[in-house]
Amino acid sequence: MLQSLFEPRSVAIIGASTKELSIGNVIIKNLQKFNFTGNIYPINPKAPDVRGIKAYKTISDVPEDIDVVHLVIPPDRVPDAIEECGRVGVKNVIINTAGFKEMGEHGAALQNDFVARGKKYGVRMFGPNCQGIINTDPEFNAYCDFTFTYPKPGNISIVAQSGGVGAVIMQNIFDLDVGMRMYASNGNACDISIPEIIKYWGDDDETKVIILYIESLDDPGYFMDVAREVAAKKPILAMNAGRTLEGAKAATSHTGGLAGGIVTDLIFKKTGILSFKDTQEMCQAAIAFAAQPIPRGKRVGMITNTGGPAIIATDELVDGGLEIPELSAKAEEVLKKTMFASASINNPIDVVATAGAPEFRSALDVMMNEEQIDSIYINFVTPPFVDCESVAKEFAEVSSKRIKPIVCNYMTDKAQWVETTKILSDGGIPFYDFPGTAAKALVALTKYYELKSRDKGTIPDFKDINADAVSAIISKAKAEGREILSSFEVYAILDYYNIPTSEWFIAENKADAMLGAEKIGYPLVLKADAPELVHKSDAGGVVLNLASAIAFSSAVAQMSQKFSDIKHNYFIQKFMPGGKELIIGAKSEKGVGHMIMFGMGGIYVEVLKDVCFELAPISDTEALEMITSIKMYPIIKGVRGEKGLNIQSIMDVILKISKLVQNHPEILELDLNPVMAFENSVAVVDARIKI
Amino acid sequence: MLQSLFEPRSVAIIGASTKELSIGNVIIKNLQKFNFTGNIYPINPKAPDVRGIKAYKTISDVPEDIDVVHLVIPPDRVPDAIEECGRVGVKNVIINTAGFKEMGEHGAALQNDFVARGKKYGVRMFGPNCQGIINTDPEFNAYCDFTFTYPKPGNISIVAQSGGVGAVIMQNIFDLDVGMRMYASNGNACDISIPEIIKYWGDDDETKVIILYIESLDDPGYFMDVAREVAAKKPILAMNAGRTLEGAKAATSHTGGLAGGIVTDLIFKKTGILSFKDTQEMCQAAIAFAAQPIPRGKRVGMITNTGGPAIIATDELVDGGLEIPELSAKAEEVLKKTMFASASINNPIDVVATAGAPEFRSALDVMMNEEQIDSIYINFVTPPFVDCESVAKEFAEVSSKRIKPIVCNYMTDKAQWVETTKILSDGGIPFYDFPGTAAKALVALTKYYELKSRDKGTIPDFKDINADAVSAIISKAKAEGREILSSFEVYAILDYYNIPTSEWFIAENKADAMLGAEKIGYPLVLKADAPELVHKSDAGGVVLNLASAIAFSSAVAQMSQKFSDIKHNYFIQKFMPGGKELIIGAKSEKGVGHMIMFGMGGIYVEVLKDVCFELAPISDTEALEMITSIKMYPIIKGVRGEKGLNIQSIMDVILKISKLVQNHPEILELDLNPVMAFENSVAVVDARIKI
Repeated sequence: MLQSLFEPRSVAIIGASTKELSIGNVIIKNLQKFNFTGNIYPINPKAPDVRGIKAYKTISDVPEDIDVVHLVIPPDRVPDAIEECGRVGVKNVIINTAGFKEMGEHGAALQNDFVARGKKYGVRMFGPNCQGIINTDPEFNAYCDFTFTYPKPGNISIVAQSGGVGAVIMQNIFDLDVGMRMYASNGNACDISIPEIIKYWGDDDETKVIILYIESLDDPGYFMDVAREVAAKKPILAMNAGRTLEGAKAATSHTGGLAGGIVTDLIFKKTGILSFKDTQEMCQAAIAFAAQPIPRGKRVGMITNTGGPAIIATDELVDGGLEIPELSAKAEEVLKKTMFASASINNPIDVVATAGAPEFRSALDVMMNEEQIDSIYINFVTPPFVDCESVAKEFAEVSSKRIKPIVCNYMTDKAQWVETTKILSDGGIPFYDFPGTAAKALVALTKYYELKSRDKGTIPDFKDINADAVSAIISKAKAEGREILSSFEVYAILDYYNIPTSEWFIAENKADAMLGAEKIGYPLVLKADAPELVHKSDAGGVVLNLASAIAFSSAVAQMSQKFSDIKHNYFIQKFMPGGKELIIGAKSEKGVGHMIMFGMGGIYVEVLKDVCFELAPISDTEALEMITSIKMYPIIKGVRGEKGLNIQSIMDVILKISKLVQNHPEILELDLNPVMAFENSVAVVDARIKI
Repeated sequence: MLQSLFEPRSVAIIGASTKELSIGNVIIKNLQKFNFTGNIYPINPKAPDVRGIKAYKTISDVPEDIDVVHLVIPPDRVPDAIEECGRVGVKNVIINTAGFKEMGEHGAALQNDFVARGKKYGVRMFGPNCQGIINTDPEFNAYCDFTFTYPKPGNISIVAQSGGVGAVIMQNIFDLDVGMRMYASNGNACDISIPEIIKYWGDDDETKVIILYIESLDDPGYFMDVAREVAAKKPILAMNAGRTLEGAKAATSHTGGLAGGIVTDLIFKKTGILSFKDTQEMCQAAIAFAAQPIPRGKRVGMITNTGGPAIIATDELVDGGLEIPELSAKAEEVLKKTMFASASINNPIDVVATAGAPEFRSALDVMMNEEQIDSIYINFVTPPFVDCESVAKEFAEVSSKRIKPIVCNYMTDKAQWVETTKILSDGGIPFYDFPGTAAKALVALTKYYELKSRDKGTIPDFKDINADAVSAIISKAKAEGREILSSFEVYAILDYYNIPTSEWFIAENKADAMLGAEKIGYPLVLKADAPELVHKSDAGGVVLNLASAIAFSSAVAQMSQKFSDIKHNYFIQKFMPGGKELIIGAKSEKGVGHMIMFGMGGIYVEVLKDVCFELAPISDTEALEMITSIKMYPIIKGVRGEKGLNIQSIMDVILKISKLVQNHPEILELDLNPVMAFENSVAVVDARIKI
């Protein structure tokens, strides 16, 4: 595993430099400044020593086994250096040098070369084009990195594909006066990967929270396996970087991996990672996660010694889906006795600016005792006429019981209220400079609770499907080199999975069409069926509501004439008016599996983009969540006295499609558009499958 | 004006106290600590001196004219104290004491009492239940407040109804090492109001930006007049506090004024105030406004020395509606020569981590020279191997030209990079700890540009209206004590304003109904018309699409029977099928005028709440903005090859309704629901007016 990387006993620097403003010097300075407990070996062919430490001409000259070697040499020299490291049994190499895969073909070739050589010797490689690692454990004090923040020990571990973002996060946690456990920024990630690091931290007891910044996933499947396993043990907070098209473009231009947007967010959600849009919000949530228990619900008790910030906090908490419920009569009884006359004695409890330790403590005790309160939000401005240290001590004491989480909007000049600040800090009270910021941290804690405690549901095991028959259809089409399945194949597949379709029949000629029409019964839909006719509706290849044999026959005749130059069949379907159009789709994402889409069809999907996505395999709970999460759900449920649609039937189609693409990963794209939904049933009326 | 309040030469404290932890002591301490340039007069009946300053027994004993008196005495003693202040010619009284209007009836009576007495003598009153004012102008150094932040002089002035929020904002600006000009937090605002303060700062040349926190508007009309005038001169940034229902409830419980939500935001928008949801975001925007010019467009040039933060910044900028355009070929030419080989030479320009002053400067010059770039965003991490001070000097020098605004995500440990930080700070570069934060500040600058430069349009002056006739209808109904106008009155009003309605006729009996029907022509709609029948559609009082005299006659007979116990008329309308339902409404807001609503009717308004609001009077530009801003606008414009609706006709109805409620402010509520809209016309088919 990664123990020798994060807990090194010896670090060598190939490219150690005597120049102050150089990476080969800064890394040694950092190891010294951070009091690295192991040995440092500068490697420099000329200098006798670097930063006062004896230097060696080559790595082979070092008289000890080396856990970590930094490479700070030009890219062209890296492969040989790694070969040499391999020969002398170096365990890990951190390749700080840039100029590899990120720089085009020549760089990629170099990277492939050194990776192959490293693997030959079993050297683990970290980077290239990267910062390195930090471990604040006093047993190691390992600062194998050229960055500049010197964190104190703590419980937050940070892994960032981008060194810049990693630096921002580490510095901010430091600025917030909160400790950090380990840090890793592995750039191109040629060997040691982010999932591997997360897995390692999953087993590290001192890591209570993991902060993740990732721009692209090279192996989404492995990432998902690890994330699911670790997120079950401890919170993982992650940025969804590249969530806009432009941002995703910027991200993919780095690595070519799967980047940004919906898929990343779905992966995060599916595996239990808490996703953030804002780095600061993520950092500020992390310090709450590191210090406080997880709430068991969304009901907040608010205590404030000033009115305005309570309004702002209320806005933010309510926006985040939290509630600020009324307190019990019993609680009011207590508060009537303990609060000043000018106080507000419900939720929020406004203890007023003159409140001291006894008033705050009573309010805290009430919130701790109230059954309908899950977490506590405090606005604490430090009035110059109040003994704030005593107030802070009460916060710390109540917090130490770790019953309900406490966050605090702490409005003060920390340079003046030094002792008060220290009491809060030592007491593990996460405090923030703004009401909205503190509120957002509490929202994040609560969202994590909901993510963890949410009923994941079960993935049904359908008995009424014939997967072998579908495999045969797909294999045949593949063998024939076809990407788009014929209507016959598509509807056959749906039938084999018992996905309801409107009754259908395919005829090769007019006579058969008439027979088929009689068999199904009027009214009917007639479609011209040919692989070339992708947009058949626009091309006039669809006629709806043919109510009689005469109308049908005439439509067939017209169609036959219209598409006389294209070899086509007649696709005949029962016409099903009066339903609502739904759209259900699936799309294969490399390494992830399939993304399933659900929405209301027609203008809703076109104008409102009112669709939602989920990764297969989908559980019953998730299928229901998809249906209820779209904006038009009230239409599905029924509004204005209108009866709703049959939700169970819709769920069944979603679940069957999820099963279908899981069983047959060869399906690249599948569209059921529309699915007509009624009060008691649903039926697919148009479908397309691409393999 | 407020000069004697904000530029006091003498300050007395009635209730001056020798106790360190008391407001009457803290205010004197603050004046001393801030080096107040005028005289301080502690008023204390017993102590010979307070904090080393000679005390006087009463205000009458003070040997000088007093500009500002603080009252820090129990509420019951305030009226007499103000009377005494009035008698000796005190100009301003800051009533720090709480326990007035905010505390119920007795407090309100006390407040009314002292306000009356103060007005009698011409004393201006600030507060009660408030902090006070601060002026950092070195000529005054007036710290008439009991808060704890000691700001340095600057260009941001802050006014906050809530002292707590005021303290948060002031402290944060201070923490950001940015100067402040003036501060005011006036609590209950019994006399000196927030608009008055804003107006005063509008004329203060040293105030470049105003930050506003307001929870409720006592006199929205006056507020709007002042805001419009001042916002035209300098940016006003404001929190929309109470934007959620729960938050608004918390806000109104303070003062009973107009609070929060949509109306506040509409007032802000209408008057040119930049509205924020987040206090931190507002503060961070303020420091950019204080130091940088306003961009002339939304095209950002990004310069970065690290990849990841550029992705996050891109997400945030694009989310905020900004663009990151390609650079010109000419710019690329220059950059090819000046950048390192590993740099990216388009937008964003990634100068790479090893870039020093020459590389950054060249990138900055390119962005400054590019015509298609309006503002510059910099990600600057401070690599320990780069001469960062020289880089910062280039930023400062380019910024000093004040051509395009620059914001900087400055990723560093400020305790180590002290000199670099100072160069940026002195150079007026607004810098931030996170890419998202810096991006949001730039988004705010750009939004302000758009707000200022937006075409306000013109309010049309309709000739085809008969306002006198409408006034007569409303007066008559008022005289008869009616609140809801009859259908006849409503449709008459619409006709007098030439607002198209579907042709209508009101009949008192069956025979007249038949005549009316013949006159209009089939198909028709028949409605039972009576004041009691508010939800006539649900009650079966509406029959659509009566295509013949027989059908019509039978419907009249059935309706006559159904509502035999209610005296009703028959409201007959031309049936107009095939249009799209719109909804247009107006609602009177106390002191603000009318709020006009527009949306698509039916499920769109019920399920999607797809409506927008604007304050009357509405200009042509605003009417068009309303129509284009709803989510379903593509339907109005025409989608999927369908023809759209007649936008000019819809605009006309909105503008006429705006004119109607402006001419007739007695109209409290007006609903046109639905207005049927077609390719070439619109027609109101149901309407309601409440006076």
